[in-house]
Amino acid sequence: MPSTYRLDPRLEADSVPVIELPLSSVRLSRDANYPWLIVVPRLPDLADLTDLTDYDRRWAMDEVARVGRALQAETGAHKLNIANLGNMVRQLHIHVIARFETDPAWPGPVWGKLPSRPYEPAAEADLVARLRGRLQD
Amino acid sequence: MPSTYRLDPRLEADSVPVIELPLSSVRLSRDANYPWLIVVPRLPDLADLTDLTDYDRRWAMDEVARVGRALQAETGAHKLNIANLGNMVRQLHIHVIARFETDPAWPGPVWGKLPSRPYEPAAEADLVARLRGRLQD
Repeated sequence: MPSTYRLDPRLEADSVPVIELPLSSVRLSRDANYPWLIVVPRLPDLADLTDLTDYDRRWAMDEVARVGRALQAETGAHKLNIANLGNMVRQLHIHVIARFETDPAWPGPVWGKLPSRPYEPAAEADLVARLRGRLQD
Repeated sequence: MPSTYRLDPRLEADSVPVIELPLSSVRLSRDANYPWLIVVPRLPDLADLTDLTDYDRRWAMDEVARVGRALQAETGAHKLNIANLGNMVRQLHIHVIARFETDPAWPGPVWGKLPSRPYEPAAEADLVARLRGRLQD
């Protein structure tokens, strides 16, 4: 029986849905310290970018770039951090994070620096709606 | 006068050349804690992946995947970490790092965890030669 895609429960718990692109689910990390999107290609049995076929990897990275441009336009980030780590949650997911010279982890990476800080519900819903608007054209 | 590409002096100091691919220079980080390659597209004025045209980004990420497969084959890594951060050195460069469940930063990211540990010169030359061999086909 072929494997089927299912979002890892830890990714599901730590993020909220923004939009479904043709290949990937785009989710907002529930950490208000940084505007932080997560791109998850909806294909089974992937951990590394090298597990994708060339075709699927190009498609996935095109979607990552589209997400990066939307996040940059929405936030005016000084720098994007785009990364597949996957040391804790193995399912392939690509972080797209808006970084600012004034953010609490700058210039280090964000992972493990500060405890997650939840959004106010209205602020989270508003940011999701604005990002979705930028990604749905 | 158009800008010209020049490798950032900090990247140059912290890594050694492995091979020139059609678009990117591939370099080995001078940190023996982790087998760690750095891919630098030889184009001027780039910081983010979104600064590349679609065509150049696909080409760059194809080279990143090629580097990732070579590093994985050479080291038997448990996981690859592939990341563009650029918070300290702004010039676009993509880290391709072989991670092991036994490495000193696992499962966290490698940046800022441990001081760099230089390779023994013979070990560095040998690893560069083996990686170059895998990348020059």
